[in-house]
Formats: sequence, structure tokens, C-alpha cells
Amino acid sequence: MTPLDDLLADLVPSDAPAAAAARDRHGLLAKPPGSLGLLEDVGVRLAGIAGRCPPPVPANPAVLIAAADHGVHTHGVTAWPQAITARMVELFCAGGAAVNAIARTVGARVAVLDVGCATEPADHPLLRKVRVRAGTADLATGPAMRHEEALQALAAGDGMVQELVGAGVDLLVTGDMGIANTTASACLVAALTGRPAADVTGPGAGADQETLARKQAIVSQAAARAPGPADPVGTLAAVGGLEHAALTGAILSAAAEGIPVVLDGVIADAAALVAAALSPAVTGYLIAGHRSAEPGAGAALDHLALRPLLDLGLRLGEGTGGLLAVPLVVAAARVLHEMTAIADL
Amino acid sequence: MTPLDDLLADLVPSDAPAAAAARDRHGLLAKPPGSLGLLEDVGVRLAGIAGRCPPPVPANPAVLIAAADHGVHTHGVTAWPQAITARMVELFCAGGAAVNAIARTVGARVAVLDVGCATEPADHPLLRKVRVRAGTADLATGPAMRHEEALQALAAGDGMVQELVGAGVDLLVTGDMGIANTTASACLVAALTGRPAADVTGPGAGADQETLARKQAIVSQAAARAPGPADPVGTLAAVGGLEHAALTGAILSAAAEGIPVVLDGVIADAAALVAAALSPAVTGYLIAGHRSAEPGAGAALDHLALRPLLDLGLRLGEGTGGLLAVPLVVAAARVLHEMTAIADL
Repeated sequence: MTPLDDLLADLVPSDAPAAAAARDRHGLLAKPPGSLGLLEDVGVRLAGIAGRCPPPVPANPAVLIAAADHGVHTHGVTAWPQAITARMVELFCAGGAAVNAIARTVGARVAVLDVGCATEPADHPLLRKVRVRAGTADLATGPAMRHEEALQALAAGDGMVQELVGAGVDLLVTGDMGIANTTASACLVAALTGRPAADVTGPGAGADQETLARKQAIVSQAAARAPGPADPVGTLAAVGGLEHAALTGAILSAAAEGIPVVLDGVIADAAALVAAALSPAVTGYLIAGHRSAEPGAGAALDHLALRPLLDLGLRLGEGTGGLLAVPLVVAAARVLHEMTAIADL
Repeated sequence: MTPLDDLLADLVPSDAPAAAAARDRHGLLAKPPGSLGLLEDVGVRLAGIAGRCPPPVPANPAVLIAAADHGVHTHGVTAWPQAITARMVELFCAGGAAVNAIARTVGARVAVLDVGCATEPADHPLLRKVRVRAGTADLATGPAMRHEEALQALAAGDGMVQELVGAGVDLLVTGDMGIANTTASACLVAALTGRPAADVTGPGAGADQETLARKQAIVSQAAARAPGPADPVGTLAAVGGLEHAALTGAILSAAAEGIPVVLDGVIADAAALVAAALSPAVTGYLIAGHRSAEPGAGAALDHLALRPLLDLGLRLGEGTGGLLAVPLVVAAARVLHEMTAIADL
């Protein structure tokens, strides 16, 4: 376990000369300049992350699914029972969830972290357990967790990435599971962007109008109590989830290792806001896989100045949207490697 | 070579009960209903095309790149020399173009059809030549080709698809190459949707303002001379390109074979308008891979009621945008095959 300060010290800005070289190279390839649009931007970003042009082609992507439960569930912010979180963790391990089908499609491995499910899922080789606590406390009535617990969950995410990188993973996709976690995400986005709750709170997995109104009122009050960007870990502790903390650690860890991070939806976007508040340089390592249908996602991505690759109306989480963007990221790197220069036509 | 009437007779509407079964199945899987957004719609469409649920998972995608030249090039509608068309055909065969890097990324084979390049490209095992004529006539001053030539080019596209399907291809991606072909595409889109030239003419590979104004004036006059949707082949002959005709044949042929077609950009979208004017049932077999930056693409997709999967600001053609959508199509099928039902959680 790396202390947070050490992790932040290891994180250097992505390499501007390598990024500029990739931009120049795109102007020399056998195509009209700029004609690959956002794919060119991704290639430039990958070169900056790797510190060389052309950047390496990602060959071993992995999705890290951080799972935990939320005390705010008690207020009926979702129609789904809390027990679903652990059941879905078991399904990720068994291979029967949407994230598994999509991971197989794009050739990504799946790693699962129980960082605080309310009920403990069964053991499995794909599952790591760092059960900081059995779900957060109710963020509507007090802090979701203690500062130290937030740091423990963050370190658990860091530890998972260390393990994955040690096993050869060269592209990290964020994933998440946690019934009620769009409520905590909305709190983080509101607290860290300054946007009003009404702009960043959505129906999540399918809240009706009455539930949405209740959720929005909770977000509005809780976000106002969070310390905000000057105290990112304090904000996590006040209104975040254990999976948000773990993903914050995972994102910082991957960036410190020089590995690109493909963000999934609003949970990852909220964690990325925390990571960027801790170290603005982290944004150079981030690729927004998609724009979730949840409004907080767009608000967070705007704040991070990230343009999403996909916009398919997804609102599932698990890492599904991030994984669907993996072939685009791989293609962005391969184009820089494999295309002939126009001068050689 | 199948006569066009026989091809149209073979084309039956996609299967509504199978599509409905896929929609129902999506409501039973271990995720909130509708949470996979547009990916669910693609799965439903694939089920309709295959006539069964779950639909088969595409395992052998291919991009068919139809290449030809355009007499309208003489008016300076683009800064690129006409000789580039044949050089790019050779590069597709050699494997050094953007389309090749992306095809390798998504596991698709590449097939190239010279249906009328101005200069003849070198022979290659990946290249078929059905050189109907060495580029179209100038559509600004008269018909681009004779009716019979349009039918020959259409049959060439049909023949290519027959060959690919015979070799096991189960997902067709359209590709194209033809310097000046966004001008012909804009003419087809204007003539077949009734939209004004100003709405559907764009800078293509990078026309400046003066060139764009000239291009728009040509499109406006030429589209007005085309017979329109009541005479689709006549419209192709009046203002289309040989590659548009070939792609029209390829699209109809794939649909008649029950193979899904992923459309690339504005050239394919224009060809799809011709195909849909010949047989409205064809639209059930189409998946819009992306929304090209060219304005005619959006107009054509709106007319066809197709929502694009990607919107990356691509304006290269070759099949690049269509290929990038292939993993999404595969994922849409795999989700329907591989996900556990929520009742089994």
C-alpha cells in the first residue's frame, strides 16, 4: 500500500513533446489532415501518456469493477434492493453480466474488488476483498465514512491496479457496482463542480419522478455539507462511496504508472473529479469512454474538459461503456503505427 | 449477376416477431430495463435481420471498398488530384491505409472493388476490377453515366457481396474511395431527400470556403435535374458515382442474403437512400456506423430514420467509421446470448 502522498508524488504530467509529435505525425499520414476526428485526439493523448510517438498499442486491457453499498439506500433513492450489489459481484465472477459479455468482445480481463458490500459475496479467484466497511453510513444524515476509511478504500484501488499492472495490464477501464451509487456520484459532482443538485442528479437505474425528487433534495443538502475541491478526501468521506474512493485510487495509480485510464460512466467521472482535485495532472491520462445518460456525467466531463468517445444512452455502469470504447483506443494507437505517410503514396 | 428485379424480389422485410422477442429478452436480463441504450436497439435489429433471438454473433465481418472517379472533379470541387483514387486503392491492397489499421483492430477482412477509377490500379489478390467506365462523366453538365452503366456498377457490388458471403462473411461494412465523391453524394442526398444543397453539401476532405461555394452551386443545379426517388437508378445515373451504384447493389445484396450492413459515412448513406428508394424494406438491415462530419450524412440518416452509433467527427471514408462500430454490433449480439436472466440471480 502506497501512502497517498507518495502516489501523488509519482504522478507526473503527460509528455507534451510526444503529444505534439503525434499531432504532427497525423498531418503526414495518407489521409486528409484531421479527417479521423476524435480518434486523432485519442492518439495524441496516448502518445503523451506513453511519452513516445507512436504510442504503444494497448494489448492487455482490464476492467476493474469496484463494488460497495450505500447507507443512503435507506431513503428509498432507488427501487433496487441492496442485496443486488453482492449478487452482481458474484455474477461478474461467474461471467454472466453485461460487463462480461462486452469484456469478452473487446478482449479485456475482468477484476472485481469488494471494497464494502453490505453482504459479503462468495469467494472467487477474480474477486479481491478489502472490505473497509459493510457499506457507507447514510450521507443524508452525516458523513458517509471516516477520513481514514476513505484512504483505506483509495489504497485498495491502488493495490488492485498495482496487481493488474504487475500482471501485464496496459490499459485500465473503470467499472463499478453499488446500488444507490448514482446518489453519491451526484453529491460528489455537485460538491466538486459547484453545479446545483438539479443539474447533476438523474434517474440512475430508473427512479420515478417522486424518487428523483427525494434523491435531488438529499443531494442538494449533502453536497452543501461537503468541503469541496480544497479537501478531496474530505469530500469523499462526506458524501462519496467506498467504490468512488477505490476508483480514485485506481485512477491515480494507473496515471502514476503511465497507463491510460478509460472512464466508464458517472461513478468513474465523479471519482475522476476527486482524483483531479488531488492532482490536476491526472486528467492527461484520462479518456472518457462514453457519456452516460446520467446528467452528472456530462457535468463532470465538461469540468474535466474531456470529450466522450461514445454517447449511446447507456446507464448501466459496471464498466460497460468504458469497455465499448476500448477498440477505439486501440485503433487510435494502431493508426499512428501502421499508416503509410502520404509522401510515400 | 442477378438482375436488379430478382435482387429486389429476394429482399423481404426483417422479422418483426424475432425483433420483438429480442426487445422482450432485454427486459429479462440482469440489468435495469433499457440501460444498454442504443446497444439494445442494435440487438433488436440484429434479431429482426436473422429472424431469430438471440441473433447469431457476427464472426466474419468484411469491409467492401468500392472505388471510382468523378468527372465533376474538373470543376475544382476538391484540392486533391484525381490520381489519388487509384493510389489509395493500391494502398488498401498493400495494407497501409487507415481502413487497414482499423480493419485489423476489429478483425475484419478488406475487399476492394475498382468499379471505375480514372487510372487503372495495379492488380492484387484483394482487388476485383469491374471497370464500368474510367470515372463518371461531369454531372455538372450532363448525366454522370448511362442508365445501363449504373446497373452494371450496381451488379458489380452485388457480385462482390455474393463472393464475400460465399466465403463466410456475415457482416458487411461499406467502404468507398473516390476523389470528389462527396459532391456526388450531396447531389444524391439532395435529390432523394428534397433537402436544399446548402443543407447537405460540406467541405468533404477539406474544401475551403470558395471551393465549398462552387461545390454547392453545382450540387444545387445537378440535384434539380435528377429525377428523384421515383426513379432511383435514373438518379444514380444523373448525379451519382459508380461507387455509389456499387454500394447500392452491395447493400441490396446483403439485405437479400439476410446479412446486416454497417454503413460508413456520407457516400454509403447516399447509396442507402438509393437502395431504400428501390426497396423500403432494406432499411431494416441497416446499422448506421457513425455520423460523418459531412452534413449530408446527418440528412440522409434522418431520412432513413437511423441513429448513428458513433459521432467522432470522422470525415475520411474508406469504411473507417463503419469498421469502428463493428465491436459495438458484436457486443450487442453477445449481450443477448451471454447474459444471465435477472430471475436467475
